[in-house]
Amino acid sequence: MKGKFITFEGSEGCGKSTQSKLLYEYLKRKVKRVVYVREPGGTKVSEKIRRILLDPKNTINPLCETLLYMAARAETVSQLVKPAILKGYIVICDRFLDSTVVYQGFGLGVDIGFIYNIARSITAGIKPDLTILLDLPVAKGLRHRRFIKDRIEKRSLSYHQRVRKGYLRLARQEPERIKVIKVKQDKYKTQKEIKLVVDRFLEKYR
Amino acid sequence: MKGKFITFEGSEGCGKSTQSKLLYEYLKRKVKRVVYVREPGGTKVSEKIRRILLDPKNTINPLCETLLYMAARAETVSQLVKPAILKGYIVICDRFLDSTVVYQGFGLGVDIGFIYNIARSITAGIKPDLTILLDLPVAKGLRHRRFIKDRIEKRSLSYHQRVRKGYLRLARQEPERIKVIKVKQDKYKTQKEIKLVVDRFLEKYR
Repeated sequence: MKGKFITFEGSEGCGKSTQSKLLYEYLKRKVKRVVYVREPGGTKVSEKIRRILLDPKNTINPLCETLLYMAARAETVSQLVKPAILKGYIVICDRFLDSTVVYQGFGLGVDIGFIYNIARSITAGIKPDLTILLDLPVAKGLRHRRFIKDRIEKRSLSYHQRVRKGYLRLARQEPERIKVIKVKQDKYKTQKEIKLVVDRFLEKYR
Repeated sequence: MKGKFITFEGSEGCGKSTQSKLLYEYLKRKVKRVVYVREPGGTKVSEKIRRILLDPKNTINPLCETLLYMAARAETVSQLVKPAILKGYIVICDRFLDSTVVYQGFGLGVDIGFIYNIARSITAGIKPDLTILLDLPVAKGLRHRRFIKDRIEKRSLSYHQRVRKGYLRLARQEPERIKVIKVKQDKYKTQKEIKLVVDRFLEKYR
């Protein structure tokens, strides 16, 4: 079986990191050949770019911010995601291109065509096969981030609302790929739903 | 008078930094309203990106490298170059878009159309009015860099030859904008030629 690419998306505080790691543990027991990546990050250079992007002391204009996310992605795809998929691994990625479309495109007004144009070159034909979109009212998510805030989390409530709406819009455009999961109070209940979606998805490739 | 944008280009060790600073000093005495910028750099974030790009310990793929240069440029243009030109300043920039076309395009094989597409969005209509291309046989230039080498300087001789040839090709395509100056042993002789070209260029706008 050729590898599969599963991404997690969602606005701040929705539990993406927790849920993507729980899924990684689950699939590791189930199918073994699984890789976990977070974006931006995963390679030495992408992690350095991540530090610039998230440092709340930095002021970065929307185009520069977009290009930095894309630069980090180019590294992550070529060094981690693509090789792993070619070797038949399931790659679980905490955020991917949808994040840029939503956070910089819908959120900051960067031209969506510009983002997809760059993406065509850097993703080297790699597209998520399944995307888990964790949906949660913005105010609830931000409450989970009350204490330490990075440069993106610090943005206004209305910004984060554009992000959430943007995600739901993408999900309507690509219902086959993007599965919306409503975040529950109990993380294991949320996980249960994710496992159901992922098991059904993997069934197809048996 | 609307400001003017003068860029310096050339392969490693050609004396761009020295000559661009000498021109800055000259124009500062002559017309006063002059700004000096180096690329990548000039803003807090661009300087951080510069550090990633030049650190010889980093491995960076060509697309990521291209996007990082463009990201730094987006900051430099929006924060420094464009505001200064709009205020009527002459901006002298040590490297600009031609460097990316030549180092990442001709040098590393990144698609030139991809580079110009991104450039259209990030340069916000800003194009150099005059470019001084300092030309020097590659081996001579690299000899000036014998001791401390950054990530780009460390590349092979044939890479640097593609860079030099790429520059000369651009100069043939845009002879009105790009003026080729052969680098002399004596930096003041080189400077004299640059001053002649720049004075003639500025005459047009008197």
